[in-house]
Amino acid sequence: MDAAEFRRRGKEMVDYVADYLENIEKRLVYPDVEPGYLRSLIPTEAPLEPESYEDVIKDVERVIMPGITHWHSPYFFAYFSAASSYPAMLADMLCGALGCIGFSWAASPACTELETVMLDWLGKMLQLPECFIAGTHGSGGGVIQGTASEATLMSLLAARCKAIRRVQATNSNYSESDVLGKLVAYTSEQAHSSVERAALIGGVMMKQVPADNSYAVRVDMLKKMMEEDKAAGLIPFYVRQHTNQNKACQGVDDLYMCVLQFCATLGTTPSCAFDRIVELGPLCNEENIWMHIDAAYAGSAFICPEFRPLLNGVEFADSFNFNPHKWLLVNFDCSAMWVKKRTDIIGAFKMEPLYLKHENQESGRSITFTHTHWQIPLGRRFRSLKLWFVFRLYGLQGLQAHIRKQVALAKVFESLVRADKRFEICAEVIMGLVCFRLKGSNELNQNLLKRITDSREIHLVPCQLSGRFVLRFAICARTTESSHIQQAWRHITQLTFELLQEPSH
Amino acid sequence: MDAAEFRRRGKEMVDYVADYLENIEKRLVYPDVEPGYLRSLIPTEAPLEPESYEDVIKDVERVIMPGITHWHSPYFFAYFSAASSYPAMLADMLCGALGCIGFSWAASPACTELETVMLDWLGKMLQLPECFIAGTHGSGGGVIQGTASEATLMSLLAARCKAIRRVQATNSNYSESDVLGKLVAYTSEQAHSSVERAALIGGVMMKQVPADNSYAVRVDMLKKMMEEDKAAGLIPFYVRQHTNQNKACQGVDDLYMCVLQFCATLGTTPSCAFDRIVELGPLCNEENIWMHIDAAYAGSAFICPEFRPLLNGVEFADSFNFNPHKWLLVNFDCSAMWVKKRTDIIGAFKMEPLYLKHENQESGRSITFTHTHWQIPLGRRFRSLKLWFVFRLYGLQGLQAHIRKQVALAKVFESLVRADKRFEICAEVIMGLVCFRLKGSNELNQNLLKRITDSREIHLVPCQLSGRFVLRFAICARTTESSHIQQAWRHITQLTFELLQEPSH
Repeated sequence: MDAAEFRRRGKEMVDYVADYLENIEKRLVYPDVEPGYLRSLIPTEAPLEPESYEDVIKDVERVIMPGITHWHSPYFFAYFSAASSYPAMLADMLCGALGCIGFSWAASPACTELETVMLDWLGKMLQLPECFIAGTHGSGGGVIQGTASEATLMSLLAARCKAIRRVQATNSNYSESDVLGKLVAYTSEQAHSSVERAALIGGVMMKQVPADNSYAVRVDMLKKMMEEDKAAGLIPFYVRQHTNQNKACQGVDDLYMCVLQFCATLGTTPSCAFDRIVELGPLCNEENIWMHIDAAYAGSAFICPEFRPLLNGVEFADSFNFNPHKWLLVNFDCSAMWVKKRTDIIGAFKMEPLYLKHENQESGRSITFTHTHWQIPLGRRFRSLKLWFVFRLYGLQGLQAHIRKQVALAKVFESLVRADKRFEICAEVIMGLVCFRLKGSNELNQNLLKRITDSREIHLVPCQLSGRFVLRFAICARTTESSHIQQAWRHITQLTFELLQEPSH
Repeated sequence: MDAAEFRRRGKEMVDYVADYLENIEKRLVYPDVEPGYLRSLIPTEAPLEPESYEDVIKDVERVIMPGITHWHSPYFFAYFSAASSYPAMLADMLCGALGCIGFSWAASPACTELETVMLDWLGKMLQLPECFIAGTHGSGGGVIQGTASEATLMSLLAARCKAIRRVQATNSNYSESDVLGKLVAYTSEQAHSSVERAALIGGVMMKQVPADNSYAVRVDMLKKMMEEDKAAGLIPFYVRQHTNQNKACQGVDDLYMCVLQFCATLGTTPSCAFDRIVELGPLCNEENIWMHIDAAYAGSAFICPEFRPLLNGVEFADSFNFNPHKWLLVNFDCSAMWVKKRTDIIGAFKMEPLYLKHENQESGRSITFTHTHWQIPLGRRFRSLKLWFVFRLYGLQGLQAHIRKQVALAKVFESLVRADKRFEICAEVIMGLVCFRLKGSNELNQNLLKRITDSREIHLVPCQLSGRFVLRFAICARTTESSHIQQAWRHITQLTFELLQEPSH
């Protein structure tokens, strides 16, 4: 395909994309296929010679669309929102054409520099403390990660590296694995599975702190757990005094356990609960515990002054991240992460073979920092273009309007549920998520969800709260309006009516 | 921006992209900016109200382009190629519009299923042994990772998990960190920095095996290193016989070191050398060492029968990966990874909270496997669309022609270098990379490279081979032709002439 054909096919694709999104609600949101459906629809091997473009594009409807869960349908209420906007798509087209791999400043200066400035813009939109902003006298800054999982992992690895160096500075006899075996991290029992996964990857023990009845962790709970662990001989002194006389057995046993990190969540996945970071932060700071804040979904809302108080306490954090690709109209992937001290995160992984060195890197100016020292992959796309396009074409007010509209829609759904005595609301509705259920058994609610899923007209997923099977209704698509919420509720109550008519109930 | 405006702006962007790529060689390949250039060109904060699209697009030329290293210029010869093709860009537009996050089969069945089948197509193009292909009776399969760094890390983590379980199965008294501290992995001294980084992240000691004078690792070198380590009390028995009578000191010291992994490279970054996997594989298999093969750049060439012999020995590997986003015309990011046993890699990280469960997942049919258990991030884009478009619109023959053309261009450059007695070739030219230098001091070559970089007309980066500063000339852009090679060589010899004219030489 040459440039001339790309001009033609590209414009056709633009229309296909616009048609798809304009007419998406005519498609059933959830696909009707069985596992393995696709393999039988296409050949078992790649063609030897080129096929025609017409054949390929025809197969998009024949092969792909039947197996798509339509995340941007206004009837999609599952998981959390995945951001999508036309400005972000335009920026992604440009990103694909530039095709620069931004693993160092020299590999494309614009790529590193725009990212640094866009994370500053975004940090200011959130009113992050100055210490997180790169273009200040502070020592912090931001980076785009692929996902919150990677941000969580990077924060754990940075904390781990810092702890190991601190212990080894006191006593160089301890090996890395000696120290590793003594590190423990805490997070909420409501935290995302990726937090536990980060600990697993990092070889660090992770303990779950119980949440209160609003599904949030409060400081007394973390304190209690730490005290219990301390009583059991764990915490938080790094190196035991050398009172052990049995030199033959000296070594790893001379190290106490040490608390590495507390990973707080603002907007948990099951119910969008908010850990009390304003209480937890000071404790972490006193005890020299790295506090990471994962606000993957809810973080976008902090650009609205009325939601910003929920971020109070971020000043105590060592690192913070949220996903503009969830709720800020920036298409996946774009997870924004800030650290208070760049050196904490860079120090852990700096490696520079000759083919990556360039003459400007030692200039000492903060702008030359290489974001690949902040992340797992070496290669990176020019993702900050998406942020730049979206910020400028929506403006802060446009983005705030988007957040407020979706929160208001959640309130509409909440009122509908509350007005029906057969149902109950299971967690406070703060953002765009409503947790609800039929009063009654888990089985009843499982049956209701099964009917909803099988109908394929709306799509939502469950969660578990206090042992109860709960339905999560998340406002997701940019184009969801009040009428869609009303229609979804009519559909749910109709299925409920049918369910409750059955003799077994 | 509504759909109507997107139709207009999208078509303009298609033309902008085509114009950019058609005229790219008129731009100087390397930018003329100082670190920090960008910040002063744009406001310090995001706008409150939306700006006009015209203003944004104008700023692409004003703000972004001056800071771009043009990776797809035919005069770009740095690093390795980054793939770019129009079919892949079209597929990426579709991917952006669908915007599904494929973290489970249910989250978009087409996303998981097309990926599985495309990795089978690709595996067959490489003539991978059947055990790596998912649609067979084997227990292997493929997955798209973002980068080779992630593939290398995943292989190390899978090997680590397997080793820990194996030791703990024999003696449950050993903690994870006890075992972790006893694991050692090997790789070539020529391996990419990401291999060492994976070990750092995984908390595993990594030792570098010296390479031969063609920069490849041969089996006798690995064997020698393992024997030396064994003599020093390290390897490869997992648990020492319980002959230690001092029960008080029993514990971690009863564990010998254990060799976890050998990470082989096919096509090293400095010189594109090939470790001798056909010799190394049997040793790894005998000693129960996980062999991972990183063929990030060179892997694409194995679709050509004449290069396939270099992959002989892959049958001994536990995992293998290469980057279609380097040399197979599939835009970044798309790193293809295969494992021989799916359970090895899935077992390490399987976590399934309720909101990710769906009714089809326990069907036991291989197609339902969830690729997020194979990778670090949870979210994933619909990247297999790019493979599908590229495979079908180029055909296997078109892709083979691309590889062969670029290798031939490297041979053209090699001949030019060899015909000039002032220069020497520093490593065998097998693929699209030529390592060369001026006969003489490292300083002389550093000066030459500085002149090349400063001229901005062509771009290449150095490497170090046997302590010598060497220039790497990689055939990168899809549109590079023989005329560009000739022009680049004229440019290099002109700069050489000027350099050697200087009194200091």
